[in-house]
Amino acid sequence: MKKRYPIAIPVLNGNEKKYVTDCLDSTWISSNGSYIERFEQGFCDFCDTKHAISCSNGTTALHLALMAHGVERGDEVIIPTLTFVATANAVNYCGATPVFIDSEPDTWNINPELIETKITPRTKGIIVVHIYGHPVNMDPIMDIAQKHGLFVIEDAAEALGAEYKGKMIGSIGHSATFSLFGNKIITTGEGGMITTNDDRIAQQIRLLKGQGQDPQKRYWFPVIGYNYRMTNIQAAVGYGQLENIDWHVDQRIRVAKLYEQYLQDDVRLTLPVQKDWARNVFWMSSIILNKGTVQDRDHVMIQLKERGIETRPFFYPMHMLPPYKKLQKEEEFPVVNRISALGMNVPSYGTLSEEDVKFICMNIKEVLD
Amino acid sequence: MKKRYPIAIPVLNGNEKKYVTDCLDSTWISSNGSYIERFEQGFCDFCDTKHAISCSNGTTALHLALMAHGVERGDEVIIPTLTFVATANAVNYCGATPVFIDSEPDTWNINPELIETKITPRTKGIIVVHIYGHPVNMDPIMDIAQKHGLFVIEDAAEALGAEYKGKMIGSIGHSATFSLFGNKIITTGEGGMITTNDDRIAQQIRLLKGQGQDPQKRYWFPVIGYNYRMTNIQAAVGYGQLENIDWHVDQRIRVAKLYEQYLQDDVRLTLPVQKDWARNVFWMSSIILNKGTVQDRDHVMIQLKERGIETRPFFYPMHMLPPYKKLQKEEEFPVVNRISALGMNVPSYGTLSEEDVKFICMNIKEVLD
Ligand SMILES: Cc1ncc(COP(=O)(O)O)c(CN[C@H]2[C@H](O)[C@H](O)[C@@H](OP(=O)(O)OP(=O)(O)OC[C@H]3O[C@@H](n4cnc5c(=O)[nH]c(N)nc54)[C@H](O)[C@@H]3O)O[C@@H]2C)c1O
Ligand SMILES: Cc1ncc(COP(=O)(O)O)c(CN[C@H]2[C@H](O)[C@H](O)[C@@H](OP(=O)(O)OP(=O)(O)OC[C@H]3O[C@@H](n4cnc5c(=O)[nH]c(N)nc54)[C@H](O)[C@@H]3O)O[C@@H]2C)c1O
Repeated sequence: MKKRYPIAIPVLNGNEKKYVTDCLDSTWISSNGSYIERFEQGFCDFCDTKHAISCSNGTTALHLALMAHGVERGDEVIIPTLTFVATANAVNYCGATPVFIDSEPDTWNINPELIETKITPRTKGIIVVHIYGHPVNMDPIMDIAQKHGLFVIEDAAEALGAEYKGKMIGSIGHSATFSLFGNKIITTGEGGMITTNDDRIAQQIRLLKGQGQDPQKRYWFPVIGYNYRMTNIQAAVGYGQLENIDWHVDQRIRVAKLYEQYLQDDVRLTLPVQKDWARNVFWMSSIILNKGTVQDRDHVMIQLKERGIETRPFFYPMHMLPPYKKLQKEEEFPVVNRISALGMNVPSYGTLSEEDVKFICMNIKEVLD
Repeated sequence: MKKRYPIAIPVLNGNEKKYVTDCLDSTWISSNGSYIERFEQGFCDFCDTKHAISCSNGTTALHLALMAHGVERGDEVIIPTLTFVATANAVNYCGATPVFIDSEPDTWNINPELIETKITPRTKGIIVVHIYGHPVNMDPIMDIAQKHGLFVIEDAAEALGAEYKGKMIGSIGHSATFSLFGNKIITTGEGGMITTNDDRIAQQIRLLKGQGQDPQKRYWFPVIGYNYRMTNIQAAVGYGQLENIDWHVDQRIRVAKLYEQYLQDDVRLTLPVQKDWARNVFWMSSIILNKGTVQDRDHVMIQLKERGIETRPFFYPMHMLPPYKKLQKEEEFPVVNRISALGMNVPSYGTLSEEDVKFICMNIKEVLD
C-alpha cells in the first residue's frame, strides 16, 4: 500500500498515556485536577513568564486576552491580514473591529512599518501573529505600542519555542496566546494557553474563563464570564508533551532543514527564512510558488494529494473573507495577496524521516514540471 | 479517618479507560476522531432525536443553539430566574437580553402561567431549564411558543434521561442543550451536546462550532464562527458513560429515594417532587428549609461541611446577580426569592450507599436541631 503523508500527526511518545490513565484512575477528569496546575507551571517556566493560564483552545485564549485588556464594543484592534481566522474573530467577539496590515515579504509576518498609519483614536491594541513559527520583529512593534498607549498580544498559536533576540516568544508582548490543537508543536487535542507577566491580566483571565464566578462565593457572578476551561485530561496530555518540548521543537526544525536541503536550489520555489535575530520553530514547513496563479497552486495541491501527500493552502487573508472584506480595500495588501495565493504548507511532524521528506520533495518537483 | 462526602463524583465504571487508551494509541486525540460520531449517534438514539451535535460544554451548547435560532442584538429571550448563570450569559453573548420568570413552588421550574405577560415584539424565544432533573411542564410552553412564533430551547444540562409524558427530555423543544461536566448524570470531564430534529438548525450548529469554515473549502469562512469543538478523548469517555446510561440514571433516582426515605417525615424540610406526568432523574438531591433566612441555610451548610459533607446552595436567581439585577424588580419573584435562599443540594452520585445517605441524613437532622 502506498504510504500516506498527512500534513500533521501528534507524536505522543512521552508520559501522556501514563498521566491520562492517572486522571481516569483518580476520577479527576474535569477542569478540576492537579495536572492543570502542573501543566500551567511547566508552561510558564518554559516561556519564561510569571503566569500561564490554560483554556479550551487558541481561539478562546485570544478572546480571554482581548477581554482582559479591556477591548470593548467600538474599539479597533490591529492585526495582520495573513492569519488564521480566529485572530480576527476574537476581536469581533468583543464587538470590536479588526484592522488589517500587510506582511513583510520575507518573514510573512505583520509589517511593522505599516502599523502607525492605521492607528486611530479608537485603536486599543495590536495582535501580532508569529506565522508558521517565525517570530515577529517585536522591538519596533513594542515601541509603537508604547508611544500610542496600546497593548500588544502575541498570537503565538503557531510558535511555541520560537525565540526573538534570545527571548522566548510569549514573554515579549503584554500577553500571548497559544493553541494546543492536534497539529501544533505540542498538543492537548484541543487546548489553549495564555502567558503574561501582568498579575492583573492573569487574574482577570482566570475570572473570565471560569464563568466570572466570585472565587469566594459559590454561584455568585459579579461579571459575565465564559466556560473556557481546559480539562485535567487535556492538561495531562499537555504535561506529558511538555516534558519533551525540546525534542518536539527540534523535530520541526529538523524537518524544515530537510525540506531546505532538498528544495533550496529549485528556482520555482521560495522557502521560509530565519532572520538572524530569530529562532524559527518551523511549525509548518512551507513553499511558495514563484510564478502562477491561485489555480496553479491549487492544481499542485490536488496532484500531491493524489500521490498521498496532504498539504494546506496558506490562509485566505482576512481582507478577502466575507465577514471582513467590506472593511478594507484589497489593493492595500500586495504582499499577502501574492503569497496567500501561491503558498502552501507541506507535511510537518516529528516522525517524518529523511526518506519521507526526500520522497515528498521529489513529488513536489515532479508535479511542478 | 472521617469519611468525606463531596457533592458529586463521576463514576467511570465502564469502558471509559479502554476507549481513551484507544484514542491515545491511535493518536486521534483532537476534535478529529471516530468516537465523536459514535458518541453523537448514541446520544441522539438515547434522546430520540434526529441530531446530536457535540461541543465543548453546556455553556457553548446554549450559545450555539441561540445563534442557530437566529438570536441577535436587541432580541429578548425568556428564561427562568432560577438557573445556573450560563443560561442568562448565553443570551447575553448574542447581544440579546434575558427576561426572567418566577418558578412554580413545587417543581421549582419556570412557571408557564407567567410567561405570556413578558412577551414583547422583541421576544424571539424561550429557554426552559429542567432544574435539578425535574422536567418542565412542556405542553403549555410549546402552546405559547406556537401562538407567538417563538422558539423553545430546553436547557437540559441537569436532566439527561428525564421524561415528560413518556417523551425524552431533549426531544420536545425545537432544540435542547446538555452539559457533560464532571458532576453531571454522565460526563466527558467538560463537554456539551445539542439535540434537535431540525436539519437546518443542526447544520448551522455544525458550521458555527467549527469556526464557520465552509465544509468544501479549507480556510474559507463565510460566517464568523467559534471553536466550540469536543475532542475525541472527551467523546471516548462520554461513549463509555453512555453505554451505561440506564445505570447512571437509576443511581441518581435510587439516591434520591434514599434521601426521601430518611428525610420525608422531617417537618422542617421540603423535598423535591415528581409530578405524575414526569420522570425526575434527580440530578441533584435537594432539601429546602421550611423556615429561616439565607444565613440559617448557610449556617447549616457550614456545619455540614465541618462534618465532611459538601453541599451547594441553590443558585442565586439571575435577577439578583450584578450583571442582570437592573433589568427587573426583585418583588416579581416571590417563589424563587424564598427557595433560592433556603435550598441546598446534597451529595448525589452513583456510588453512595444506603449507609452513606443514612449518615448524611442523620447529620442534616442533627445540625437542624
Ligand atoms: C494564528 C492562529 N491563531 C489562533 C488559532 C486558533 O487556535 P485553536 O485552533 O482554536 O486552538 C490558530 C490555530 N489554527 C489552526 C487550527 O488549529 C485549525 O483547527 C487547523 O485547521 P486545519 O488545517 O483545518 O486542521 P485539521 O485538518 O483538523 O488538522 C490538521 C492536520 O492535523 C491532523 N490532526 C489533527 N488532529 C489530529 C489527531 O488528533 N490525530 C492525528 N493523527 N492527526 C491529527 C489532521 O489529520 C490534519 O492532517 O489549523 C489551523 C492553522 C492559529 O493558527
Ligand atoms: C442549567 C445549566 N445550564 C447550563 C450549564 C452550563 O454547563 P457547563 O458547566 O458549561 O457544561 C449548567 C451547568 N452548571 C453546573 C456547572 O457545570 C458548574 O461548573 C458546576 O458548578 P460547581 O458546583 O462550582 O462545580 P464544581 O465544584 O467544580 O464541581 C461540583 C462537584 O463535582 C466534583 N467534581 C467535578 N469534577 C470532578 C472530577 O473530574 N472528579 C471528581 N472526583 N469530582 C469532580 C467536585 O469536586 C464537586 O464536588 O455546577 C453547576 C450547577 C447548568 O446547570
